[in-house]
Amino acid sequence: MCTSDDRPSPVRLQAVAALGQPEPTPALEALYRGFERELLVPLWTEIGDLMPMAPRSKAVPHLWRWDRLVALAGEAGRIVPVGRGGERRAIALANPALGGKPYATPTLWAAIQYLLPGEDAPEHRHSQHAFRFVVEGEGVWTVVNGDPVRMSRGDFLPQAGWNWHAHHNAATEPMAWIDGLDIPFSYYTESQFFERGREHIAAHEKTTPERSRSERLWGHPGLRPLSQPGAPAATPLLAYRWVDTDRALADQLALEAEGHAGATLGEGHAAVRFTNPSNGRDVLPTMRTEMHRIRARAATRTRREVGSSVYQVFDGQGRVTVGERQWQVSRGDMFVVPSWVGFSAAADGGSALDLFRFGDAPIFEALHAFREEVDPA
Amino acid sequence: MCTSDDRPSPVRLQAVAALGQPEPTPALEALYRGFERELLVPLWTEIGDLMPMAPRSKAVPHLWRWDRLVALAGEAGRIVPVGRGGERRAIALANPALGGKPYATPTLWAAIQYLLPGEDAPEHRHSQHAFRFVVEGEGVWTVVNGDPVRMSRGDFLPQAGWNWHAHHNAATEPMAWIDGLDIPFSYYTESQFFERGREHIAAHEKTTPERSRSERLWGHPGLRPLSQPGAPAATPLLAYRWVDTDRALADQLALEAEGHAGATLGEGHAAVRFTNPSNGRDVLPTMRTEMHRIRARAATRTRREVGSSVYQVFDGQGRVTVGERQWQVSRGDMFVVPSWVGFSAAADGGSALDLFRFGDAPIFEALHAFREEVDPA
Amino acid sequence: MCTSDDRPSPVRLQAVAALGQPEPTPALEALYRGFERELLVPLWTEIGDLMPMAPRSKAVPHLWRWDRLVALAGEAGRIVPVGRGGERRAIALANPALGGKPYATPTLWAAIQYLLPGEDAPEHRHSQHAFRFVVEGEGVWTVVNGDPVRMSRGDFLPQAGWNWHAHHNAATEPMAWIDGLDIPFSYYTESQFFERGREHIAAHEKTTPERSRSERLWGHPGLRPLSQPGAPAATPLLAYRWVDTDRALADQLALEAEGHAGATLGEGHAAVRFTNPSNGRDVLPTMRTEMHRIRARAATRTRREVGSSVYQVFDGQGRVTVGERQWQVSRGDMFVVPSWVGFSAAADGGSALDLFRFGDAPIFEALHAFREEVDPA
Amino acid sequence: MCTSDDRPSPVRLQAVAALGQPEPTPALEALYRGFERELLVPLWTEIGDLMPMAPRSKAVPHLWRWDRLVALAGEAGRIVPVGRGGERRAIALANPALGGKPYATPTLWAAIQYLLPGEDAPEHRHSQHAFRFVVEGEGVWTVVNGDPVRMSRGDFLPQAGWNWHAHHNAATEPMAWIDGLDIPFSYYTESQFFERGREHIAAHEKTTPERSRSERLWGHPGLRPLSQPGAPAATPLLAYRWVDTDRALADQLALEAEGHAGATLGEGHAAVRFTNPSNGRDVLPTMRTEMHRIRARAATRTRREVGSSVYQVFDGQGRVTVGERQWQVSRGDMFVVPSWVGFSAAADGGSALDLFRFGDAPIFEALHAFREEVDPA
Repeated sequence: MCTSDDRPSPVRLQAVAALGQPEPTPALEALYRGFERELLVPLWTEIGDLMPMAPRSKAVPHLWRWDRLVALAGEAGRIVPVGRGGERRAIALANPALGGKPYATPTLWAAIQYLLPGEDAPEHRHSQHAFRFVVEGEGVWTVVNGDPVRMSRGDFLPQAGWNWHAHHNAATEPMAWIDGLDIPFSYYTESQFFERGREHIAAHEKTTPERSRSERLWGHPGLRPLSQPGAPAATPLLAYRWVDTDRALADQLALEAEGHAGATLGEGHAAVRFTNPSNGRDVLPTMRTEMHRIRARAATRTRREVGSSVYQVFDGQGRVTVGERQWQVSRGDMFVVPSWVGFSAAADGGSALDLFRFGDAPIFEALHAFREEVDPA
Repeated sequence: MCTSDDRPSPVRLQAVAALGQPEPTPALEALYRGFERELLVPLWTEIGDLMPMAPRSKAVPHLWRWDRLVALAGEAGRIVPVGRGGERRAIALANPALGGKPYATPTLWAAIQYLLPGEDAPEHRHSQHAFRFVVEGEGVWTVVNGDPVRMSRGDFLPQAGWNWHAHHNAATEPMAWIDGLDIPFSYYTESQFFERGREHIAAHEKTTPERSRSERLWGHPGLRPLSQPGAPAATPLLAYRWVDTDRALADQLALEAEGHAGATLGEGHAAVRFTNPSNGRDVLPTMRTEMHRIRARAATRTRREVGSSVYQVFDGQGRVTVGERQWQVSRGDMFVVPSWVGFSAAADGGSALDLFRFGDAPIFEALHAFREEVDPA
Repeated sequence: MCTSDDRPSPVRLQAVAALGQPEPTPALEALYRGFERELLVPLWTEIGDLMPMAPRSKAVPHLWRWDRLVALAGEAGRIVPVGRGGERRAIALANPALGGKPYATPTLWAAIQYLLPGEDAPEHRHSQHAFRFVVEGEGVWTVVNGDPVRMSRGDFLPQAGWNWHAHHNAATEPMAWIDGLDIPFSYYTESQFFERGREHIAAHEKTTPERSRSERLWGHPGLRPLSQPGAPAATPLLAYRWVDTDRALADQLALEAEGHAGATLGEGHAAVRFTNPSNGRDVLPTMRTEMHRIRARAATRTRREVGSSVYQVFDGQGRVTVGERQWQVSRGDMFVVPSWVGFSAAADGGSALDLFRFGDAPIFEALHAFREEVDPA
Repeated sequence: MCTSDDRPSPVRLQAVAALGQPEPTPALEALYRGFERELLVPLWTEIGDLMPMAPRSKAVPHLWRWDRLVALAGEAGRIVPVGRGGERRAIALANPALGGKPYATPTLWAAIQYLLPGEDAPEHRHSQHAFRFVVEGEGVWTVVNGDPVRMSRGDFLPQAGWNWHAHHNAATEPMAWIDGLDIPFSYYTESQFFERGREHIAAHEKTTPERSRSERLWGHPGLRPLSQPGAPAATPLLAYRWVDTDRALADQLALEAEGHAGATLGEGHAAVRFTNPSNGRDVLPTMRTEMHRIRARAATRTRREVGSSVYQVFDGQGRVTVGERQWQVSRGDMFVVPSWVGFSAAADGGSALDLFRFGDAPIFEALHAFREEVDPA
């Protein structure tokens, strides 16, 4: 079957006897051949898949163990160089239901990146938004537009689209961390741009200040520098330090313990969102990033949201439930929660469970398409 | 090769000798097997495809001729009933490069819908945003939340997500029109909801007022009814009539002819956007809709935009250029312009060329990812 | 008593025996003298006036009869020329409780303007926002940035700040209309700028097109010209014609009569707001403008709002109640409703009562300070 | 002269021989008598005052010395009790050109408040927005909706409208601080509400936590608590501590010294704005609050803005220039900068000059009426 352009048509239609489908007849078969030739597809054969009653994700819940990620990243460190072309020694989670593509979920890229002592990852910029999160180790600097940003355990480093950036490992040990990007979304929607920068960052950019310039300008609570007017769509603050995140979570649980139930998201469940200090919104236009702490022996309610998320266990041990799947998790483990699949977590070890989360909710909020359901406590 | 869950892995990696790729060695092969087993994909094998210098659309330019669309829709009218399950006798354009899927572009659904005299399409609602545009014919009513909206040549009828709607053909002739929806985008991002309504619309909803209630409330220029507070994200106005659109386009060209060059988008190129009167923005959160008029013997400049569009020729004849493709077009012909592919049109017949256009630009604007380039005049 | 700068102090404090006041003693007297010398005023003597339980307007309800306004304006036409310096033959309503100042309310200027056949009012621009409303007559043109705008009965012409404008009477009769501006607010907040333009408008600007250029670009319902990007804070549409306003009001009452109670603001009470088509908001950043129609024998509910309004009767006869005052009104009569004073209107003649209204509500909405109360029906 | 209502008219018009005025004649006199009777005022006698070329403030620059403010406040402490009715022992700056009214500028209230050891100021709430700033001392708590907020030198405490609040001095010394409110603006625009609360705050609210609950929820840089959704128009953070403000200013000057000129507002001039962490905007809808630090021997450029400001010297010594006035200032001194009057400051002592500033700029920004001019360096 060829199209009117004399090329083979990719459209394949099959007349079947099924509820809601027209009766298979020679006339219907002829019609379908016409559709194929003209590159047409009727709604009635597709509606069940395309327009379900509620989202049915193409992705599935899945868990990656941190020890295996680190082991393979370390092995890659031994045999795969870092440089222009490949750009980064980053290894992405491939959701088992997404055809072997490097997509943790349909919209999100999640990868472990690995850098040996003294290595540089070359400078580039891209329209995709990115962040780094450090579950262990220290010593790597990300240089953003010439501003070196230290990376240590618990730190969150957003990297808004179209900023020049490179990495350098100034320590004596290899370092691994995770990268989150909206690569699949940008690829799908065909909105991505990329540009290469310098091969090597300058020596003075490899020095290691305790705080980046961005932190010295924007990292003071409730204060903005008058020298930086406007409200950029993505955050101008390049590092959110663990000391602050930890304290904010501890404060919420302490307030709850003092009788202020409204301080937490649910009983024993503290949570903060990383925000753009210039507008109070998510750090990146396409990604929401949060840190959750579930108190020892507490559990979250089950929540179902439009859009997908990736979690990494930052600390503690616990049990997470994603739809039909359930796992015991500990430091570094990563798992995905597909769209409209229920999620809950319980800190069933003797200590709190800290979960880093990123997701695509800002896309749906911007388009007025976000919905959520929370099961009663 | 199986994953750690003992299921076959969809990941397939191949060590190849290529620029920017690590040298194929047994160690690399072993590493790739480990990646496959753990459901991991390295950036360095994917970056060229995933992160190009500028968008490279998976879709291609393509043209569908109106006479063939109408002929096949008419044939479908003879043999495929309309009713619950299939819901609509709608036949979608399938971009030849998108694997036979009913996607005009990666984000947009474009279909011809066809209704015989006396037929009803059953009531439902869905989160996907939709619109109808009528290139010829009249007599069908769309009933939106109980408000019957007449459809005639040149009319544009937006249909915001989650409103109940049904169609009824009250005329003595079949009628065809086009539907535009964000079905592929909703499917890809997994954000869609659907609900079935009444099987049949009530008799009094089949009456045929000249103007819908929505038009009587919201269809007066620069005036809003105080009884309807707020600014809904999608337009409350359910019909934009051809008499208004035509006049607005004629006014722009007349102003240009009187010496006011700034009245048009370019010389001989008038254009209006359909907007939500409650907030002045696009009628739908995910779709931009416009009508363009190119004066006889005039041509537009070539424009390249992030995001894709579908055009239908409303009137006149001309030549359109989409990237490397070029077609002579006339009434009803439909074609797609993929992301970042240049587009221009020329009215080379003796009369003006009127083009209806819809696209996904609001998605990119909402996410601060829109870019465009216009060639010098 | 002099200040520390040796100038007489304007502060005068009196120790009085009163509830909530400190006991008058010599020490208190000495303290008050010290306050006066240092230009200080204690809260405790002022709080009752400055911080009441709810707004107590400095203005009072008042009515001006149209026949007297027109008679005095006509007399001014005979003896006061129009030209540079005085700029306009405009005569402002002075609220009787505001000290003889030309303020209809603390924030609003309302004036009758009068132009003889052939007269020009010279071109200028100012940061104050303005509009014209025409209760009778026709033949005057307002020229805004070179775009002549016809003025006829029922037309509403907003005039955003900092646009050049002049008036010309091209008819054979004198013409009167009303001007509304935010002059008192701008004066009080000290934010006003003014610039003089040409003494005389050009001959070709005195021609009389049926529709201004602004209407041809922006006066089509739900359509925006692509040649005019962005969303200016004040409306780009320079005339809102009576034919549209009248039809919108009639439509609401007709819908109500057909059983759609939600179409009107209250039973028998239709109302539209003039809006900026580029953003759906009020036409001017500081002034809200509306037209209300009360059906024969209907009445509005009593409404109380933060902020003040000025009304002009456009047509019909009725009874209006403003706080403790009540008047029978007819065409052209103007009255003020001070902040937080209840207002209602009844069409007790045989026909509908049409009321044009302008007020300062956008100021309070922008600052999150708006409140309103509506009495039960 | 009486009005048509038989009450004396407040309008007084005088026919004078002056440029731009109509020639004084008996006819003009008669016309003016008619205007007075009908409560009308022509534009031509008022335009010069009402519509100047640029703002001409009714207020004048003025300085209040801190030692005299504290001395008089202390004296008031000895003889004026604090309690219901007077509500606060607050003593307001009265601009010498504003008729003895307690207005520092036409829109702003600035007062010194004074509380003896053990005293309570009773609970109330009002729609006016307020803040406290502490130039010296400590020991007082402001209790906001039951959340006690410690006050110490350098702390800034915003107090959004309509929140219950009371004060308590838990120390052994009297304490003075300054209050800023939008009382004159609210009074002028007649938008104010007030409600009395409890006479006495509870014992447990008098305890003295180091950090308020609001700080524990909202005082972490770039982090928002998920338990507090939305973006309130006024800040939910009730204290901005000096340690943060000081560090932010020091960081800017240090960055400048390291070669990053863009970190400061001008050479040697660091500045931060207090912002609402939920939306990145000013802490209060009507007031902007900032801290400026001018490095020793540096000076600011002269700046002219629509809207007025009040400054208090927080630390250091210097010379400030406001229009034609110039003063040597030191800790605690307060001065006003009227609308469109140029302001500059120089740290001519041996140390930096720290200036706290509050102003009404958010009003003008919200209404699109803000303008500023900065002299070249």
